[in-house]
Amino acid sequence: MLAPSQSEIEERIVALRGGIGSVSGVRVSGVHAGIKRRKRDLALIVFEREQACAAVVTTNDVKAAPITVSSEHLATGMGVRALVCNSGCANACTGERGDRDARATAAQAAALLDVAPQQVLVASTGVIGVPLPLDRVQRALERCVEQLDEGLKAAHDAAEAIMTTDRVPKLSAYAFYHESKRYTIGGIAKGSGMISPNMATMLAFLATDFPVAKDDLQRLLTAAVADTFNMISVDGDMSTNDAVYLFAPQGSLAPPPLFEQVLGKVALDLALAMVDDAEGATKRLEVRVVGAQDSAQARAVARAIVNSSLVKTALYGEDPNWGRIVAAAGAARVGFDDRTWSLTLNGRTWVERGGIEALSEAEAHRLLEEREIVVTLDLGLGDARATAWGCDLSRDYVRINASYRT
Amino acid sequence: MLAPSQSEIEERIVALRGGIGSVSGVRVSGVHAGIKRRKRDLALIVFEREQACAAVVTTNDVKAAPITVSSEHLATGMGVRALVCNSGCANACTGERGDRDARATAAQAAALLDVAPQQVLVASTGVIGVPLPLDRVQRALERCVEQLDEGLKAAHDAAEAIMTTDRVPKLSAYAFYHESKRYTIGGIAKGSGMISPNMATMLAFLATDFPVAKDDLQRLLTAAVADTFNMISVDGDMSTNDAVYLFAPQGSLAPPPLFEQVLGKVALDLALAMVDDAEGATKRLEVRVVGAQDSAQARAVARAIVNSSLVKTALYGEDPNWGRIVAAAGAARVGFDDRTWSLTLNGRTWVERGGIEALSEAEAHRLLEEREIVVTLDLGLGDARATAWGCDLSRDYVRINASYRT
Repeated sequence: MLAPSQSEIEERIVALRGGIGSVSGVRVSGVHAGIKRRKRDLALIVFEREQACAAVVTTNDVKAAPITVSSEHLATGMGVRALVCNSGCANACTGERGDRDARATAAQAAALLDVAPQQVLVASTGVIGVPLPLDRVQRALERCVEQLDEGLKAAHDAAEAIMTTDRVPKLSAYAFYHESKRYTIGGIAKGSGMISPNMATMLAFLATDFPVAKDDLQRLLTAAVADTFNMISVDGDMSTNDAVYLFAPQGSLAPPPLFEQVLGKVALDLALAMVDDAEGATKRLEVRVVGAQDSAQARAVARAIVNSSLVKTALYGEDPNWGRIVAAAGAARVGFDDRTWSLTLNGRTWVERGGIEALSEAEAHRLLEEREIVVTLDLGLGDARATAWGCDLSRDYVRINASYRT
Repeated sequence: MLAPSQSEIEERIVALRGGIGSVSGVRVSGVHAGIKRRKRDLALIVFEREQACAAVVTTNDVKAAPITVSSEHLATGMGVRALVCNSGCANACTGERGDRDARATAAQAAALLDVAPQQVLVASTGVIGVPLPLDRVQRALERCVEQLDEGLKAAHDAAEAIMTTDRVPKLSAYAFYHESKRYTIGGIAKGSGMISPNMATMLAFLATDFPVAKDDLQRLLTAAVADTFNMISVDGDMSTNDAVYLFAPQGSLAPPPLFEQVLGKVALDLALAMVDDAEGATKRLEVRVVGAQDSAQARAVARAIVNSSLVKTALYGEDPNWGRIVAAAGAARVGFDDRTWSLTLNGRTWVERGGIEALSEAEAHRLLEEREIVVTLDLGLGDARATAWGCDLSRDYVRINASYRT
């Protein structure tokens, strides 16, 4: 069988509106438990059948209780049947009580759903160091179960319930066809600040109805995260609660390339939704590094640029200060060569090899007035490439973060 | 002979006002060359005799022309007789022309002072990617030579001439007595933004009249930089032009502990002057990490905390969000233990082991209203310690950096 061409593949992918609610066998809900004042703050995802689960979680030395409890549950090897997620409280740095509260939440959901506690994952996001108001969570969990549903409305509620400083809920889903059967991959996510190129302060829950072998599922999730969630940056910080979970019916075969491609689309949609919703952001910055010696070099340079406070403030001010981009690239210390690079800005040659400006300051300034800025940095060293996404650093970022409550 | 006690040592140290101008055998000047509009922008430091020189320079892959030319001159092993420094232009990413301009500046100074070009170092700071206006530098250099002088006024002029966004010139000097003779160590520095714990966007020129063997000089400078300039942070960025040079008459003996102590005081004065002059800063944050397994762990944690955008914005908002401090400590990924840490705030116990708050939110908020905040994080793991200094991240930081010219 010949591999399908790119256009043939694209034709077989259909965008859906319902996020994780578009995936058959998945029901979700989101309610107001009272952890936050007036907003939804408790989400439940339930799977009709036992799911294989792949996970990528924070590498912070400080891991919130729900992270460690969920890891323990996954380590039992039992198929996952549900995930409970609250916002408004991170349940991090909460000592033994935090651990007990996370276990109690899983146990209660398990009892309500008639599954084993180890088949339930938990996730939390919000303020660190404050105990989880367990009584409120417990009262609300019953309502969560009652309201479980498929489709857009329920997924929207769940996506809202996991938001912290997010302004909009984040959903993505696609259908695709494989051997004449229709499958879906969908997800919801939250994240708008404290996002760094190491998977920080974000949650994403992805599901598919395509059966996948467990090892393949982990490999595919790790690859998708590397190119999407790990390549976005808001402020370079890293949280105690970050997690991406991907659920699939247990299968025995490796999925086709099309599966990988659709998974990448869902992950990128959600990652870019975070960038666009970044705290105080007024612009999206896409940094394409090309001409690198290898992929690691390309990634390191692209991430250094989107992470630089000086690049981000210049972008906010629409200041065509390309020196800051080059200085940030050099600061990555991965063999950036001062003599071989060139820059383009939104497709126009900006600076040629050796630092010769091809655009006037006025022209460059005009291009920087756009909402979406694409900078391509050719390292002039090889053929590898990588893309990172970030945003500007505005006065509003400071305002939002100078006093953050639930 | 018994080693002197700490109080005996302190008694033999006298603070001086003249910075590098307090050091005998050193003459300095600072003039307006016209690189910047109305401010002094060209400094000259001249040594009566040939000097040994120790250097710590930027590790950015992109190194400005004056950095590479000065390294070349130092590598000849000839004693240094002068240093020329301009502000308003970094002479970085300026290709072959930048290299020629840096060499021409050194050569002209050498001719005016009747020394070899290799005995002159050059330094630049300012905007990247703009050629040095060599004609203006050359016209002004003669005036620099005419105005060379000892003392406070001349050192103040020179310290002003190397400023970029600095609001105040930075000088420090101390006299000390050794075997009944009086010696001095003094310096000037610039730096107020783009400062990171890896020696970024700062220049410091230090001199002493105490003769020191070359190898000892480098060892002592490296140690002093590690505890001072490398432990301050404004925004985590790193520049192409950073350099710290320490000049001393060539000696044959290792200096006494008192020398090391005074050198540390000069370096710390200048480093803290940068923190206090940080772009938009309203507060100084001192982070003392104690109870670490080793010094590397203590340093990494202290630096991670002062570098965190979320810690910095919370500080600006006087928001007692200790979770962000702990999350930043964990994000350093050097074995922070979630169960053993405790925090004090300006000397008061803030959070006890396991995350139990000892101060009410209102009390902690009141303590955060001070101008100087000292947070001590006890890792509870060992006996090593380190201190880092930073500042808050304010709306003014964004305003200043959104549109930065010379």
